[in-house]
Amino acid sequence: RLYSLAQPPWPHQRPSPSASKEVWKKGGRMFSILLAVHLALLACTLVSSGAFEKIAVHDYDVFFLLTIMMLVVIVWMIFYLVSTSRCPDAILCKDSHAGPVWLRGGLILFAIFSLVMDVFKIGYYSSFYSCLSAIKIIYPIVQAIFVIVQTYFLWVSAKDCIHVHLNVTRCGLMLTLTTNLAVWMSAVTDESVHKAHSNSSTEECNCNSQICQIFKNGYFWLYPFNIEYSLFASAMVYVMWKNVGRFIDHHSHHIHRLKFRLFRRTFFVGIVLGLIILVSGLGVLIVYEVRVNSSNESSKKKEALTMYYIFNIVCLGLMSLVCIGGSVIYRFDKRDMDRHKNPTRTLDVALLMGAALGQYAISYYSIVAIVASTARDAISALNLIYALLMIAQHTFQNVFIIEGLHRQPPKEDRKRDPHQKDPYGLTFVNVNAVSLRVPDSGSTLAPSTVPGIEAIHPSELVQSLAGPKKMNWRRKFLREISMFLLLSNIILWIMPAFGARPQFDNDKELNFYGDSMWPAIVDICLPFGIFYRMHAVASLLEVYIMS
Amino acid sequence: RLYSLAQPPWPHQRPSPSASKEVWKKGGRMFSILLAVHLALLACTLVSSGAFEKIAVHDYDVFFLLTIMMLVVIVWMIFYLVSTSRCPDAILCKDSHAGPVWLRGGLILFAIFSLVMDVFKIGYYSSFYSCLSAIKIIYPIVQAIFVIVQTYFLWVSAKDCIHVHLNVTRCGLMLTLTTNLAVWMSAVTDESVHKAHSNSSTEECNCNSQICQIFKNGYFWLYPFNIEYSLFASAMVYVMWKNVGRFIDHHSHHIHRLKFRLFRRTFFVGIVLGLIILVSGLGVLIVYEVRVNSSNESSKKKEALTMYYIFNIVCLGLMSLVCIGGSVIYRFDKRDMDRHKNPTRTLDVALLMGAALGQYAISYYSIVAIVASTARDAISALNLIYALLMIAQHTFQNVFIIEGLHRQPPKEDRKRDPHQKDPYGLTFVNVNAVSLRVPDSGSTLAPSTVPGIEAIHPSELVQSLAGPKKMNWRRKFLREISMFLLLSNIILWIMPAFGARPQFDNDKELNFYGDSMWPAIVDICLPFGIFYRMHAVASLLEVYIMS
Repeated sequence: RLYSLAQPPWPHQRPSPSASKEVWKKGGRMFSILLAVHLALLACTLVSSGAFEKIAVHDYDVFFLLTIMMLVVIVWMIFYLVSTSRCPDAILCKDSHAGPVWLRGGLILFAIFSLVMDVFKIGYYSSFYSCLSAIKIIYPIVQAIFVIVQTYFLWVSAKDCIHVHLNVTRCGLMLTLTTNLAVWMSAVTDESVHKAHSNSSTEECNCNSQICQIFKNGYFWLYPFNIEYSLFASAMVYVMWKNVGRFIDHHSHHIHRLKFRLFRRTFFVGIVLGLIILVSGLGVLIVYEVRVNSSNESSKKKEALTMYYIFNIVCLGLMSLVCIGGSVIYRFDKRDMDRHKNPTRTLDVALLMGAALGQYAISYYSIVAIVASTARDAISALNLIYALLMIAQHTFQNVFIIEGLHRQPPKEDRKRDPHQKDPYGLTFVNVNAVSLRVPDSGSTLAPSTVPGIEAIHPSELVQSLAGPKKMNWRRKFLREISMFLLLSNIILWIMPAFGARPQFDNDKELNFYGDSMWPAIVDICLPFGIFYRMHAVASLLEVYIMS
Repeated sequence: RLYSLAQPPWPHQRPSPSASKEVWKKGGRMFSILLAVHLALLACTLVSSGAFEKIAVHDYDVFFLLTIMMLVVIVWMIFYLVSTSRCPDAILCKDSHAGPVWLRGGLILFAIFSLVMDVFKIGYYSSFYSCLSAIKIIYPIVQAIFVIVQTYFLWVSAKDCIHVHLNVTRCGLMLTLTTNLAVWMSAVTDESVHKAHSNSSTEECNCNSQICQIFKNGYFWLYPFNIEYSLFASAMVYVMWKNVGRFIDHHSHHIHRLKFRLFRRTFFVGIVLGLIILVSGLGVLIVYEVRVNSSNESSKKKEALTMYYIFNIVCLGLMSLVCIGGSVIYRFDKRDMDRHKNPTRTLDVALLMGAALGQYAISYYSIVAIVASTARDAISALNLIYALLMIAQHTFQNVFIIEGLHRQPPKEDRKRDPHQKDPYGLTFVNVNAVSLRVPDSGSTLAPSTVPGIEAIHPSELVQSLAGPKKMNWRRKFLREISMFLLLSNIILWIMPAFGARPQFDNDKELNFYGDSMWPAIVDICLPFGIFYRMHAVASLLEVYIMS
């Protein structure tokens, strides 16, 4: 035993001489962050100025900047792919948490839709290319190439922990991240402007032909996918940036290789309930869109709004209850918390908490408007309940997802293992304990805590032997819950992403805050709300697989 | 040697059984963050709505919410002080980085000014208390009590790492943080509204008497101090929150006990140059304010603006050059980077980078406006140079400060120590190496790296013996630089904090972006810019002491 401590066989010891190559990681990161901040601010300035007609900055100025940024990023990505394939020492280890297959699958799905959108855009602008600046056609062409190259790049190298050209790679990744965020900002602004001016056609060259109208409507319907593509790519690029120059302890990883088995021992209750919600939600959305957009009668509009609110209240209420149930089940779950370092998960949690702020802000402004205004009617009451439930549901769902993501995956393999009590099991726990870091205390658990672990461990084993039936029940429930929440989040993503805007159709807040403040609040915050739903779906899928 | 590894005498081993009391630190933090997010959003909604006259939310609604929050925080602080003084196990260790004496000193200074402001406010409102709601007088009274209690609380317990009532303490601290931020938001909004409407007096009860006018002007002049007080308190409370339940390895600390010796071996060049800038800046500010506010002649206004811009360009240019010089000196500095965990420093860096965004945004919007508009004159050219230099100076200064904060303090004591090469010195380095964590690689340097450190160490000793003269030169330069930057940042803080607004006096951007967008940009971003200067002063003082 003493021998093994004096010469420990830990694999993370190996790279430590080369780890000292980089004297100060923070300094290396700082430069790339500065680059990203400046580029992002410049893009943000141009995009926000370009959105206003009165301001002498036009959308082609924005497209020009974005085109240049995308071209630079394409060149850098090709350089990265070539240089890493040539140098065998470039990638010493891979982060198995990064770029899970469903994230990469989603990326490819959104990439395909983005490409279709670009084709539509090219078709739309080429219908009257004679009276437009050339950049409006060049931009979608460059964007299509960018989407193809970036999707290939992320598919191949999302898990890389690169160890050559550290600073160039950091800057390149930050440039990629900024470009994606700028494209996202531009798409969100473009969509909001289009929604606001959908009736007035002030363009010099009108789009009158049938095919041109199809192209135009087509590319605006496909915008949500492009927006999600940019955000997915940004998240993956950020994780790659965090992994630059990182060495990974391979021990904590081989437990996580879980397979995605969709219908393993479920009661189908979650899926069936979720599908009911999904289908009825689609129906509500179609009826709502048709009624609100076609008729100017206020009674029909009110009916549509009432229907929309009631559906959402039922859906959000159910989801909140289910989330509370899930959190209660976690209280009785004896699985250990997973404290290993995991940049993907940290990012997931930060994005969930951060993106929820968008919907929180809209809801709080709604609540203040409804409470402070004197006129009260049924729609206002429904709107108030809707806003309150929105806040509650986001909060409970975040708590549920974050708790789920931090659980250790189930130890099924160990339970089925007949040699459970052999020394191997103890060594395994042992090594894990050594590499376990108590976060924030600035100290490490030293090998001398091994006796303590040994003392705790047998009781845990006994427990997991005594109650396998109960564990299964709990896990089944958790799986039902996450599947139901997943499907519900999909419909709550579809509704705002495809144009339902009760925030504007209901004129309460618009009258209270005025024509400039309320649209500003909604247009800034709603994209985060939509992204939240998308991201919650991805995280719930992970919770489903882990439970 | 083997014996010492098997039973290591590390002091951070001691608390590890009680560390396991808290199963999942992130979960404990999550709840308090959720509480803070919701309260902050509610306050933000009310404050931003209350700022607009058209919206039916009034400033007394905001004051009502703030008064309740402050009362709750006062009660909690008293509870905290009583419970920690009664329970001897509550505070097992203190974070020596947290609440340095100049931060606490600054807090007390700003607290005194805030109290004076509250007295003026009470005097102002009591001049016509008959026609105002009572909350307008209650609010400053409660705020005065809050300032006194909070300043005492922070003075006494800023360094605490508390280990009882973990969740209650986290929630209490987050509540305190949110209250401070809400007070800050309210003060910033109030000041902006006052500046915007300084000419129109739409209040029902006019303030006509001499003494009432004095009170009114007095309290608006004292607002910047109250704003800084809230931000200082927020920063200290945040560090306390990070330290809840933390165990500290005491080894890395006793080196940091450096004394503040102001005039130790300096050439006075930095101080003299800085004082010249400070005094001439005060002169420029007074002339500028008088000319811009008193006369409506555009020629006099232009003269004042030209003077203001030229002074700022000279000042920013000098500062940028000096920062670049400082960064170059750091390139040749052989001191090690300090990689120890230090929440105060992490917060400092994040605040510097984050607060700089405010000034960056204003500058980028200015640049776009000047470049895109066709009319070009001397003022525009000066404004463009000013905006560009502002960006450059913030960037270079951030790089300089962050690099300075991450250096190990000079090893003067060791150099003067005649027994430098005795085993004690090696043991010391040894222990430090054991507790040193390579950040982000998820692994810890284990005791087996000790031979490596021993191999590196003697050469470093030889180096520090060989070049003590050179080291002193470098350090003296760094001290000059940080003192000059410190004084320059003070004048660049004073100018916007006491009402210089070239962003509005120069009508370029106002015409370009319109009357609603440009004031919104400046009013949101400028407070961060002002805070940046204040915070840079504090950080530069630390760099001065460390170098």
